[in-house]
Amino acid sequence: MKTRQLLVCLTFLLAPALVFPQTRDAGPWWPSQWGASDQSGATNRITPEKIVSALQLVETGRVYELGQVYEAGMPLFPGRTFSLLAQPLGAPLGENQVVGHDDFFAGQLGQVGTQFDGLGHIGAVVEMDDGRRDRIFYNGLPESEVYGTTGLQQLGIENVGPIITRGVLVDVAGFKDVDVLPGGYEITVDDVLGSLREQGMSEASIGEGDAVFIRTGWPAHWQDPDTYNGDTPGMGVALARWLVGKNITVTGGDTWPNEVIPNPDPSLVFPVHQELMLKSGVYNIENMVFDERPDAGVYEFLFIATPLRMKGATGSPLRPLAIR
Amino acid sequence: MKTRQLLVCLTFLLAPALVFPQTRDAGPWWPSQWGASDQSGATNRITPEKIVSALQLVETGRVYELGQVYEAGMPLFPGRTFSLLAQPLGAPLGENQVVGHDDFFAGQLGQVGTQFDGLGHIGAVVEMDDGRRDRIFYNGLPESEVYGTTGLQQLGIENVGPIITRGVLVDVAGFKDVDVLPGGYEITVDDVLGSLREQGMSEASIGEGDAVFIRTGWPAHWQDPDTYNGDTPGMGVALARWLVGKNITVTGGDTWPNEVIPNPDPSLVFPVHQELMLKSGVYNIENMVFDERPDAGVYEFLFIATPLRMKGATGSPLRPLAIR
Amino acid sequence: MKTRQLLVCLTFLLAPALVFPQTRDAGPWWPSQWGASDQSGATNRITPEKIVSALQLVETGRVYELGQVYEAGMPLFPGRTFSLLAQPLGAPLGENQVVGHDDFFAGQLGQVGTQFDGLGHIGAVVEMDDGRRDRIFYNGLPESEVYGTTGLQQLGIENVGPIITRGVLVDVAGFKDVDVLPGGYEITVDDVLGSLREQGMSEASIGEGDAVFIRTGWPAHWQDPDTYNGDTPGMGVALARWLVGKNITVTGGDTWPNEVIPNPDPSLVFPVHQELMLKSGVYNIENMVFDERPDAGVYEFLFIATPLRMKGATGSPLRPLAIR
Amino acid sequence: MKTRQLLVCLTFLLAPALVFPQTRDAGPWWPSQWGASDQSGATNRITPEKIVSALQLVETGRVYELGQVYEAGMPLFPGRTFSLLAQPLGAPLGENQVVGHDDFFAGQLGQVGTQFDGLGHIGAVVEMDDGRRDRIFYNGLPESEVYGTTGLQQLGIENVGPIITRGVLVDVAGFKDVDVLPGGYEITVDDVLGSLREQGMSEASIGEGDAVFIRTGWPAHWQDPDTYNGDTPGMGVALARWLVGKNITVTGGDTWPNEVIPNPDPSLVFPVHQELMLKSGVYNIENMVFDERPDAGVYEFLFIATPLRMKGATGSPLRPLAIR
Repeated sequence: MKTRQLLVCLTFLLAPALVFPQTRDAGPWWPSQWGASDQSGATNRITPEKIVSALQLVETGRVYELGQVYEAGMPLFPGRTFSLLAQPLGAPLGENQVVGHDDFFAGQLGQVGTQFDGLGHIGAVVEMDDGRRDRIFYNGLPESEVYGTTGLQQLGIENVGPIITRGVLVDVAGFKDVDVLPGGYEITVDDVLGSLREQGMSEASIGEGDAVFIRTGWPAHWQDPDTYNGDTPGMGVALARWLVGKNITVTGGDTWPNEVIPNPDPSLVFPVHQELMLKSGVYNIENMVFDERPDAGVYEFLFIATPLRMKGATGSPLRPLAIR
Repeated sequence: MKTRQLLVCLTFLLAPALVFPQTRDAGPWWPSQWGASDQSGATNRITPEKIVSALQLVETGRVYELGQVYEAGMPLFPGRTFSLLAQPLGAPLGENQVVGHDDFFAGQLGQVGTQFDGLGHIGAVVEMDDGRRDRIFYNGLPESEVYGTTGLQQLGIENVGPIITRGVLVDVAGFKDVDVLPGGYEITVDDVLGSLREQGMSEASIGEGDAVFIRTGWPAHWQDPDTYNGDTPGMGVALARWLVGKNITVTGGDTWPNEVIPNPDPSLVFPVHQELMLKSGVYNIENMVFDERPDAGVYEFLFIATPLRMKGATGSPLRPLAIR
Repeated sequence: MKTRQLLVCLTFLLAPALVFPQTRDAGPWWPSQWGASDQSGATNRITPEKIVSALQLVETGRVYELGQVYEAGMPLFPGRTFSLLAQPLGAPLGENQVVGHDDFFAGQLGQVGTQFDGLGHIGAVVEMDDGRRDRIFYNGLPESEVYGTTGLQQLGIENVGPIITRGVLVDVAGFKDVDVLPGGYEITVDDVLGSLREQGMSEASIGEGDAVFIRTGWPAHWQDPDTYNGDTPGMGVALARWLVGKNITVTGGDTWPNEVIPNPDPSLVFPVHQELMLKSGVYNIENMVFDERPDAGVYEFLFIATPLRMKGATGSPLRPLAIR
Repeated sequence: MKTRQLLVCLTFLLAPALVFPQTRDAGPWWPSQWGASDQSGATNRITPEKIVSALQLVETGRVYELGQVYEAGMPLFPGRTFSLLAQPLGAPLGENQVVGHDDFFAGQLGQVGTQFDGLGHIGAVVEMDDGRRDRIFYNGLPESEVYGTTGLQQLGIENVGPIITRGVLVDVAGFKDVDVLPGGYEITVDDVLGSLREQGMSEASIGEGDAVFIRTGWPAHWQDPDTYNGDTPGMGVALARWLVGKNITVTGGDTWPNEVIPNPDPSLVFPVHQELMLKSGVYNIENMVFDERPDAGVYEFLFIATPLRMKGATGSPLRPLAIR
């Protein structure tokens, strides 16, 4: 391509970063504790030592799938698409008569089914020192530096470190002795403490860098997308802040948002997402499933999740695993 | 939908399975050693014991990324698409003024970049006992039972077990003392044995259920898609059979096919793929990268790869990891 | 790309045409009346003289839209996708501060909403002279020469001529004095003759090269996809053959298939599609709407439809117009 | 879905319109001459009388294709995708053994190949009376009322009327006696007047509601995307304003932007797009081709273009036709 046209095009596409090379003053949640240039958030807490320690949890090597199978017809957030198409390749080739199939996917790859929310997914409009209101994401990054048409320019999912850490399951539905918690139920810190106690654990069981999962039993509605997508039980702001205070790396839940819907404070929309990602760099995994369990409870395990390094994506599909 | 129309539609879409409920005679490569109904192939070899044993390999907890970042402009097989688009969500909501981004992916998700080939990806036309020629896949499954428009009906990637196993890197480029092996170079069994020897290992170092990787240095061409996609060094049929004989679970390489292109026998097209997937249920990972290495060689490690369970897909994107 | 690899890839993708360069014997429906190499079918009937003659029908210049608006939530055949996403472009550029939006579409473009079926869309398995059974399309073209992964190799929609011709609306619902014909009702030749009579027309009103539309009133169900997609009123094989005998160019209807569902002969599936496209090269437009009509009936008009010339597509979206 | 969750979701998706129900003061380019609520722009000029008059231009009924065929490998603006995939449907159904193919498209449908730019495609940042700077589109509509994730909320392409009007081709390349005008050449009003004169026409030949096309010969570079996408000849701001002053409906050109690139005033980026769409509601068709011409010049003709009514799209693919 002619240089000039390429420049025009690139300028058009990449303009935000070029036009707003601002220095960022400190704000309410930034710079992050990992520095002003950090884009990885709480996976920084998964040190080699943490990994070695998590691997010690494995005794028998049994693997538990903690994610749903991706398929057409599964519950989707309104307006999202999941479309997979298979194709036979052409005529057989060579004396070995090779044939085959490819497939094609179209949809919000990192925002359907079991999904890992990245740090560019959720932000807030914040009033800055100069009175200007701006869309702000993790580490104070403004929309103009984050958004790009063919993928986020910053905070893309490729910045997330591999997640090989200690996992803790908090079975709140079990603690409450119900199959499924009701929609709209806000899970409290006391619920978590009670659940841990019933599991023979304590507050001290949640450590820095851990992955902490909240079980509500909600996947009982997976085959009924209307109910599944409706009001859900889940954590509220208080529990989110408590978990953030434990310096965890990631939380996950078996509902579509892993937070209570609607929030008991009707003026708030997805505030838990902001407490986690925007303010703290802590990740969130949605649409998990914790129902494949042995007779004896498995509440502490090696947790493995490897978000795809897709440059500029806002999230990732995932096959989260527990090993014990 | 009216019942009748639904039935017509479903029949149209699912017709193969309904029309050809055939019993399958034994053929040259079937039934599989895991039974006539197996769809998981060599991940059956990753037993809990194998996992426990592989975890023992970890000493320091250092993680190595063995896959490429997915991004526009990376080398793609001709005719394939990689398209990612980000979108801001709407106006801020709630007093917490939440905003965000989603993204949308379109492309051959499991067949671009670092990719895990499933058992429905490659087959062969085979002459059956009755003289009829049919397209056959792993475990003798005919095209009529495998193909479906919205995803394979059988042998979909969702059947692949999680891969937590012992990984062995065979650094053939290092053994040959070159940065990059030349395109068209067939890697032999002797090359592998020589490489292992130089790494202080031996033929006995490759065990049942292992993941075995072949390093050619080809990622040096990653920024030059024309060269990268061209003739590649890689294993031929002899080495593929040798690896199959070792009862491995998966092999992987740092080229686009992980087999020599062109095959020295010009009558053959992708025969290694057939040796592995079609005939043996052994998986293949392509477009890996083994260049992030410490001073001391890391040739034996815990290998982690979690193919997405996308129903009916022919392959999966992947974030393969080595931990040592 | 290296020449050899390109050749391998192209061979793989294009193999059918290379491997089966067969001469085709005459068959039950081929060669076509426009010769053995024709791929355009009945748009051959739209001669310049036909166009000039159709233009004479216009009196006042009033335009009627004969197609539906494409939008999320409209009725889709099971398994099909309609997904549109808008995006803001980046930061304002230049002193003129230009900004903008793009959008992205994913779906079965030519097979959703108001759609024009091309000649590669529908075929039949036919027993050939040598006893072999083959998938055959218009003009005797076998699957091996038609199918290609990135678009049909032959009979793609780009072969369809522009449709500027005389349109005739047959208001069967009006003739039957109902708002909507019931699902499963087979429209007969007598229904058409009766409708024409009531419209002050006759069998002679349907001429060579015409576009003939059947109104059933079915768009009353457009907002109720389950009903809309169910059993429909429409023409059967007898009427299809009668229309073919009139040497028309295209027929269209206001249901999803423009043929009766289910066929009264339960052994037949979409036989009208075969009579039209496969055997006769006559086109079919689905999901039209004929409800925007003036007080006085407009049954004869200039009809305009311009299928997109998308290479290798099986059909096209459409904005069909009547002008009178 | 539960009512509440649906409300939250809809609010999130549709929030702009709900949050900013502002009354709009008059601005530099609004309200439009067709009223403050108009979304159709200059297709309002195509009255029934104009259509009848345009039809009179047809003498022989010969049709000229004025658009390119859509296909993989054609020139695309950087970052855009064109991906088409064909699929065989399943096994033959019924005694009539019906089979078939579908296809799937992914890409910027209305912004690739021959394309019709809608009024939501291009805008400008404008300083409002209250000092606030806002992204403004046609008729003063602000970004908050225009943008929506699954399609524009206003100014979608579905608002564009059918284009059946008088077409005028201005063959500037012919007037300049070159095969192809050079990249960067700004076509002036005098060039147009000179071309018209050489064609036996005059300034008076351009009338209200007309479609006016500028021929540069640029499709000679269609097979060479790098050159095609580079600097182009085309109209500048002066000619755009002159055309707007003639009250035309649409202009079109045989380059990728139908405006000179780069603009001779280096501070301006795509200013012609703003003169046309943003300020005047006049449409723009790009990537046309005017090379299929008879021996005698055809400079005045019936022009037909039917943008697809895809709700919320920013543009449309097109099969533009000239008939004479």
